[in-house]
Amino acid sequence: MKQPSISDVVPVDSLLRACVRVLTAMDVTKEDAQLAADALVRSECEGAVSHGLARLPAILRRIKAGVIVPHAELAVVRESATAAVLDARHQIPQVAAARAMNYTIRKATEAGMAAVAVRNGGNLGRAGYSAALAAEAEMIGIAASNASPRIVPQPGMHPALGNNPWSVAFPTHTEPMVIDMANSIVAAGKIRAAKAEGQSIPDGWATDAEGNATTDAGAALTGALLAFGGHKGWALSLIVDVLAGVLSGGAFGDGVAPPDDRSRPQRSSFFFMAIDITRFLELNEFRARLDDLLGQLRSSGNGTVRLPGESSVQARAKHLADGVPLRESTVRALDKALTELDLPRWGRVLEEC
Amino acid sequence: MKQPSISDVVPVDSLLRACVRVLTAMDVTKEDAQLAADALVRSECEGAVSHGLARLPAILRRIKAGVIVPHAELAVVRESATAAVLDARHQIPQVAAARAMNYTIRKATEAGMAAVAVRNGGNLGRAGYSAALAAEAEMIGIAASNASPRIVPQPGMHPALGNNPWSVAFPTHTEPMVIDMANSIVAAGKIRAAKAEGQSIPDGWATDAEGNATTDAGAALTGALLAFGGHKGWALSLIVDVLAGVLSGGAFGDGVAPPDDRSRPQRSSFFFMAIDITRFLELNEFRARLDDLLGQLRSSGNGTVRLPGESSVQARAKHLADGVPLRESTVRALDKALTELDLPRWGRVLEEC
Repeated sequence: MKQPSISDVVPVDSLLRACVRVLTAMDVTKEDAQLAADALVRSECEGAVSHGLARLPAILRRIKAGVIVPHAELAVVRESATAAVLDARHQIPQVAAARAMNYTIRKATEAGMAAVAVRNGGNLGRAGYSAALAAEAEMIGIAASNASPRIVPQPGMHPALGNNPWSVAFPTHTEPMVIDMANSIVAAGKIRAAKAEGQSIPDGWATDAEGNATTDAGAALTGALLAFGGHKGWALSLIVDVLAGVLSGGAFGDGVAPPDDRSRPQRSSFFFMAIDITRFLELNEFRARLDDLLGQLRSSGNGTVRLPGESSVQARAKHLADGVPLRESTVRALDKALTELDLPRWGRVLEEC
Repeated sequence: MKQPSISDVVPVDSLLRACVRVLTAMDVTKEDAQLAADALVRSECEGAVSHGLARLPAILRRIKAGVIVPHAELAVVRESATAAVLDARHQIPQVAAARAMNYTIRKATEAGMAAVAVRNGGNLGRAGYSAALAAEAEMIGIAASNASPRIVPQPGMHPALGNNPWSVAFPTHTEPMVIDMANSIVAAGKIRAAKAEGQSIPDGWATDAEGNATTDAGAALTGALLAFGGHKGWALSLIVDVLAGVLSGGAFGDGVAPPDDRSRPQRSSFFFMAIDITRFLELNEFRARLDDLLGQLRSSGNGTVRLPGESSVQARAKHLADGVPLRESTVRALDKALTELDLPRWGRVLEEC
């Protein structure tokens, strides 16, 4: 696949300020805008561009359509020392997730560990961003979200489970190690890219609308994704849907709306957990032991093995130093949304940041 | 592959009594023998025969060799309301696991949730057996164990992670739903079976001792297993090793001895978690919502979709009613071990039970 065209290379601080400016123009509070901007820019910096600024147009349009509610406050539905059910009330999903994970971390600081299920969330973005918040607070973090049905529980014919993202993050001596995945063999984005390029896709990635194997990218987009490892992969999506959807009292299975349906809130549910490591052993001992284990993994491949999250950490370091290259396609999509919403175009916003 | 030859069909109660008798003859207390027998017979009943009575000879020989210590008491190394580190002190692993999971459940009953890491365990057997104990107590159960290195973190060359089994179990209106897996594409047992039959194995299952892809079953047995979903599968093994091995202060990575090394304790570490569902929502509501989700999965395939653990539940119901068919190979292996240890042969033990 050819390299995407780059529109501009932008310092991280300017990017954060530009995101905040656009969001506050849509009636988002400054504090909430900063939470959302941090999540989006972090993904952009780490090379996870499909979770970066490319998500901003959908957030803006959904606010306009009234299916994301910027001033909604996270409500506590049920609470005890170690557990809670929260209602995100269709707040910007990145904002609701950050607040809910920080709430989980506070509970775990008191109780040693805590688990929180959140109803009426939305498109979480990267689960790893949420899990890393706990690891940055020197805890083990777990984050997951359900999503609208995209995966076929084989040998089924129709999608019945979301490609539910989940993440586990551990603190290390340096940056947290973030294990972050969804459960399809490939992300839907790769299939969309193949379709855009007029290419076929390998057998085993997806099925068509009738549940038959297909190598036609267009047919795959109307069908379903196949899980990695067959029943093992869809069992992971099932676990996430029970922890997030079933436990939160919110939407699960076919109750979660697709992200491109602007007629109603998406209603994805989230699940967060934080575990205080020091209840088990001293933090430095944990870090030293984890370093030892990771060293064993590295030496198993004479330097060829990339540990989970390593490429994200490297990309972020580079982009913090050199600025973030924005794709032309991202900027075009932003401009289209900003114009629709009668807001200044992206180039002008950036200039003023 | 041809069907295994059956030696005998034995009522479940007789099988339990026979296991207890053999274990108590090796100086195991009756209570501990019952815990171990229940785990082994449950696996046998559920068709997971590699975790059933086929494990008994190794347990007996390891007791004789002094690397399993039947009278060892589970020691509390560190404890708080929600967390603990336990030392299994090389007790029979199934016994240590049952006691540790029951301890986890008691803590979760008080605190809402609890996580317990166990050092100096051994060959856990089926993680699903432990997780199901929590689900039978109407909680969400998580169980995992590390194991000696068998999996290559690709593109590495040498095994650096165990094929670490893990399980999540949920209570339902009927039997718990137990999701239970290890992280290789196929179990090593399938490769051993292919070798015994003189068959080759498909490309992508394993590597040889030099880290090269192989279809030779013998070469694969001296090499390493490949994880399902590539880096996603070995990340799962890594998560388990951090939660069990690193967190317990016990063995992790190459510190875990292979199960066939009788010169030293195996030192696998365990991780258990129990979550009280009623801190989130009423149990009946949880069950009804989970039933709804599982119904959606079933209807996605017009009855063709098998849910996780469904075949085990069906096998157990059948074998509880009709008796458990024991394989000739299992009985031969038992007799070999019993003879070595100067104990009555299996047929005689069964007759007296």
